[in-house]
Amino acid sequence: LANTSPLHLVIMAGGSGTRFWPKSTSRRPKQLLSFEGEGKPTLLQRTLERFDGIVPAANRMIVTTELLGGTISRECPGVEVLSEPQARNTAPCVYWAARAIAARDPKAVMLVMPADHHMGRLEDFRATVRRAAEWAASHDDLVTLGVKPDRAETGYGYLKLGEGIAAGLNRVGAFVEKPNAAKAEEFFRSGQYLWNGGMFLWRAEMILGAFDEFMPEMKRAWDESRGDVTTAYPKMTATSIDYGVMEKARNVVTFTLDCGWDDLGSWTSLETLAQSLGAAREGGVVTAGQMLSVQSRGNVVDAPGKLVALLGVEDLIVAMNGDAVLVANKGKAQDIRLVVEQVKKLRPDLA
Amino acid sequence: LANTSPLHLVIMAGGSGTRFWPKSTSRRPKQLLSFEGEGKPTLLQRTLERFDGIVPAANRMIVTTELLGGTISRECPGVEVLSEPQARNTAPCVYWAARAIAARDPKAVMLVMPADHHMGRLEDFRATVRRAAEWAASHDDLVTLGVKPDRAETGYGYLKLGEGIAAGLNRVGAFVEKPNAAKAEEFFRSGQYLWNGGMFLWRAEMILGAFDEFMPEMKRAWDESRGDVTTAYPKMTATSIDYGVMEKARNVVTFTLDCGWDDLGSWTSLETLAQSLGAAREGGVVTAGQMLSVQSRGNVVDAPGKLVALLGVEDLIVAMNGDAVLVANKGKAQDIRLVVEQVKKLRPDLA
Repeated sequence: LANTSPLHLVIMAGGSGTRFWPKSTSRRPKQLLSFEGEGKPTLLQRTLERFDGIVPAANRMIVTTELLGGTISRECPGVEVLSEPQARNTAPCVYWAARAIAARDPKAVMLVMPADHHMGRLEDFRATVRRAAEWAASHDDLVTLGVKPDRAETGYGYLKLGEGIAAGLNRVGAFVEKPNAAKAEEFFRSGQYLWNGGMFLWRAEMILGAFDEFMPEMKRAWDESRGDVTTAYPKMTATSIDYGVMEKARNVVTFTLDCGWDDLGSWTSLETLAQSLGAAREGGVVTAGQMLSVQSRGNVVDAPGKLVALLGVEDLIVAMNGDAVLVANKGKAQDIRLVVEQVKKLRPDLA
Repeated sequence: LANTSPLHLVIMAGGSGTRFWPKSTSRRPKQLLSFEGEGKPTLLQRTLERFDGIVPAANRMIVTTELLGGTISRECPGVEVLSEPQARNTAPCVYWAARAIAARDPKAVMLVMPADHHMGRLEDFRATVRRAAEWAASHDDLVTLGVKPDRAETGYGYLKLGEGIAAGLNRVGAFVEKPNAAKAEEFFRSGQYLWNGGMFLWRAEMILGAFDEFMPEMKRAWDESRGDVTTAYPKMTATSIDYGVMEKARNVVTFTLDCGWDDLGSWTSLETLAQSLGAAREGGVVTAGQMLSVQSRGNVVDAPGKLVALLGVEDLIVAMNGDAVLVANKGKAQDIRLVVEQVKKLRPDLA
């Protein structure tokens, strides 16, 4: 390789999603939970592990919120933690990390990864990452990992494949917003679309160059603040890296990632994961606690330390955490945010 | 009145029903629970209160199991507690109480009452009790209170009305077992049947005479044991007072009781009670804890100290007590015993 700079890892861990309430709360959102059972590593810890042997420990950084910074520092010792002074979507976060890395080595390849996804086949993931990192080191491209779809999903953005470069490597034709059901079906059948999983690799200098082209205000805000993030952040544009840079750039390529990826976006995807981990029982799946099922099926139970007896019920989510309990129709999993909104008013300590 | 002996109250509080699990457990069955909210008097305490001004404190006794004796003594101070050495149905319990009262005053009227029923209209109950007690004091009858039905219920035994004696007072034509739906409908429409609520009044000498006629083995067992209950109990016939004596006696009369009686036999009757106490909310009723309802209705929530969020669910029972949680279809409330049987094997500490 011409470029022998070591890799840098940037994990974006600022999420405060509500879709797993009450398992997840504002103080312990999804990335800080284990989805493999009590006492097991959190999603964030698993995300770090995934890069063992790929990214040296000294080159790892986690960007998160001030609320979570302390917890993450304790639970991920030895990793640099950047706490954002305010939530400004992903573009400012990527810019900050890129400047921090470029200050050490502008040619270094940085890997930008979400903190809270699941990879079913670890070695397939690692092989794709290694290949993508090599490409980013030696080509002037912005690289993304596009997830090979296994269904016509309407919940994700898509990458339309452009010119093929090699097996599993294409130029990106377009970034496509979340489609309706008919479009999703068309995308899935065509084989010409990948899911945008928010995973990126590039040399620090390349993404900073793209920022300068498409979001020149970022450099201005940063330089004016002399790198003081508290001063810089309010001046930076609160938008996603996808919208702010990637959709506009012409030098974007994608490696097809086929590794049992799951964004664990809802109790239903947790159910799928639990089933794959052998947690399926007569009455449903149990991700924490004990379930006792009579004339029941299709339920998801997450109740640490509890015995949950189900009688004559189907397709429910039964989850509890401290004094908070959720009993929801599985088909309404996407509406849990409506519940959390009310909890925030009624019992903010439980939200 | 010819008979001026003060009244004696015998409350039968040996029940270990499972229909309110996990709210009720073997160590704290239904009669030791409050159904009016946390911190309110238990059903047993309410039952005692009901006789204030009718039965002097010194003349009250509670018959229960050894398991519950200590708790009841603590929670009902000043009341004599008889702990049965083993469960032998109601006939031995009534015999024991009758002998204890007769030893003090054979002409004393004793009121035998269940510990765990609800009376919606207290003064109507007390008026009927007073009238029935006067009758029992001055007539050689075994008196029962028959509950005026408000529906064609298949879950109770019935009393067929015989000859009318006065308004609301009849001889009992027959004791009738729990009917099927068609029979229950016929009973209800006829106006000639009352529910057998297990409430009796008689002079101690009268019921002992009836025992001697229909269950002579009881006196034998008792006298041979010189009143030592531990020795006597195993020799006494384990049957109900209804089956052993009342169904066979010819001198049984019934006063019609119309006082909003409810035996609180299931979560559904608890729901009715809660509604009458003003606990009805958009998503259902809450008997303990806090409920937050989104797109939900008809549920019953009993979760002391918890916030229970319901999302898109209907007609569920959600109940919890310590580490035990029940989520049941309301229509399956009668099958909770199936759950409790399994809990006894899996986690006897929670049953």
